[in-house]
Amino acid sequence: MTATEQLELVSANKVHGGWLKRYRHRSGSLDCDMVFAIYLPPQAEQGPVPMLWWLSGLTCTDENFMQKAGAQRKAAELGIALICPDTSPRGVDLPGEDDSYDFGSGAGFYVNATREPWARHYRMYDYVTEELPALVKRHFPVDGERESISGHSMGGHGALICALKNPGRYRSVSAFAPIANPMACPWGEKAFSGYLGDDRTQWAQWDACELVKQAGNSGAARQELFVEQGENDQFLEEQLKPERLEAVCAEQDHPLILRRQPGYDHSYFFMASFIDEHLTYHAKHLL
Amino acid sequence: MTATEQLELVSANKVHGGWLKRYRHRSGSLDCDMVFAIYLPPQAEQGPVPMLWWLSGLTCTDENFMQKAGAQRKAAELGIALICPDTSPRGVDLPGEDDSYDFGSGAGFYVNATREPWARHYRMYDYVTEELPALVKRHFPVDGERESISGHSMGGHGALICALKNPGRYRSVSAFAPIANPMACPWGEKAFSGYLGDDRTQWAQWDACELVKQAGNSGAARQELFVEQGENDQFLEEQLKPERLEAVCAEQDHPLILRRQPGYDHSYFFMASFIDEHLTYHAKHLL
Repeated sequence: MTATEQLELVSANKVHGGWLKRYRHRSGSLDCDMVFAIYLPPQAEQGPVPMLWWLSGLTCTDENFMQKAGAQRKAAELGIALICPDTSPRGVDLPGEDDSYDFGSGAGFYVNATREPWARHYRMYDYVTEELPALVKRHFPVDGERESISGHSMGGHGALICALKNPGRYRSVSAFAPIANPMACPWGEKAFSGYLGDDRTQWAQWDACELVKQAGNSGAARQELFVEQGENDQFLEEQLKPERLEAVCAEQDHPLILRRQPGYDHSYFFMASFIDEHLTYHAKHLL
Repeated sequence: MTATEQLELVSANKVHGGWLKRYRHRSGSLDCDMVFAIYLPPQAEQGPVPMLWWLSGLTCTDENFMQKAGAQRKAAELGIALICPDTSPRGVDLPGEDDSYDFGSGAGFYVNATREPWARHYRMYDYVTEELPALVKRHFPVDGERESISGHSMGGHGALICALKNPGRYRSVSAFAPIANPMACPWGEKAFSGYLGDDRTQWAQWDACELVKQAGNSGAARQELFVEQGENDQFLEEQLKPERLEAVCAEQDHPLILRRQPGYDHSYFFMASFIDEHLTYHAKHLL
């Protein structure tokens, strides 16, 4: 903790007996000011609670999940903190940053960019796996040894790669409608070519399907992946491609629970419908 | 049902096993096109289900409650339909309609305006108590004899007056942070003088505290009012004034449950925290 580290409280709301708070801070890894949200369940008043990281999808901020998923009810019951980072650096004024919904602002893809001009700021992987966890552990009553991770769409894939790249770090990982194989879909190709350049061999370290192929044989490296997918998801065939993750997990004998839910789409209503089951799943590993 | 009555589906999302649908229709009472939202729980596939009307607050549309309150989970468990009207006529191009957040668009106050130019369109009371219920009963698998009503802030007051003005109509009524005595607060004075003119005797038929005074002695007229109020609500003292409702109910021996919740504010996080208890309360009367 540096002497100058400051957390500025942006808002505070009591929810289900706990507190949802949003803070602004200076991010060193992203070189800009960032806002994140943390929900501390009532149990946090008695002592450290385990953490569930939530990574949101394209166009979102730290707010969408906290407002729309209804997760606080079950989190308060179980005694789990929820933490939502934003989805990209903000206000860094790179050319074209705000031109499209699926690249730049709101679309950081949880990678470390290597291509200019993005490389200086777009390091969301470092931010969500290192800088922000360290900050949260310093400032809040959380148990630094008990973390799980989940997310939606771009953030569902983010959760998968964070877990796959850090065997043993997260107690459990789940994903709602993840972009399962970004190297093979328009959203991922646009993001990876923009942030990482044209060398597709560099992309492989940021793609869940490739990371499953590269995973070692330790128990930690073979961590179960829990994926929820709506069958009426408007992005299912072109962008999400869970069948590719399913195939590579089968081929590699990597544990995967892939649930396909008839009638559900890509919206927060889908997440709201199954978030309790995911929280219960994570609780089994966290509590 | 007129031969020309049309419902245009705006969106449909599966949520907790049921369906949330939004429809556009031509409103005769408001003389404009309106959108409303209805959540039909899974039980509606087997037969008619009871209805809970939800009236939202200032600046809201039919969407806020459905996206942020997390009510569908419990509604699906109980088998209750949720119906959210919009909060005012839309697109009627009256001068000044969009100038402020607390009058005109998004601020219909659930009254029938008598003052020009508002009187032609701003008849939200007729819309939410007559036109829309009749339409919903014609088109959806709901039990027309089993209705309850609730709402938030401006809509919490709306729910109270709909029930008080129609003894026996609603099986139960509840309100979150209602504007309890609009004749005696800035929001209400602005709305009532704008929609109803300067004669305060006319206002009394639209004010919950006044309606409690006017209520008859029948059991139906003495229906219990269930009010939830956050103690950290930023509008509590200047606008909401639940103590006035409490005083008049005590004076009139009108049944009131007023719960004050420490730490909670005026946001949807407050509603999300207690909506399950309100749905359970209404279910006791509806099921």
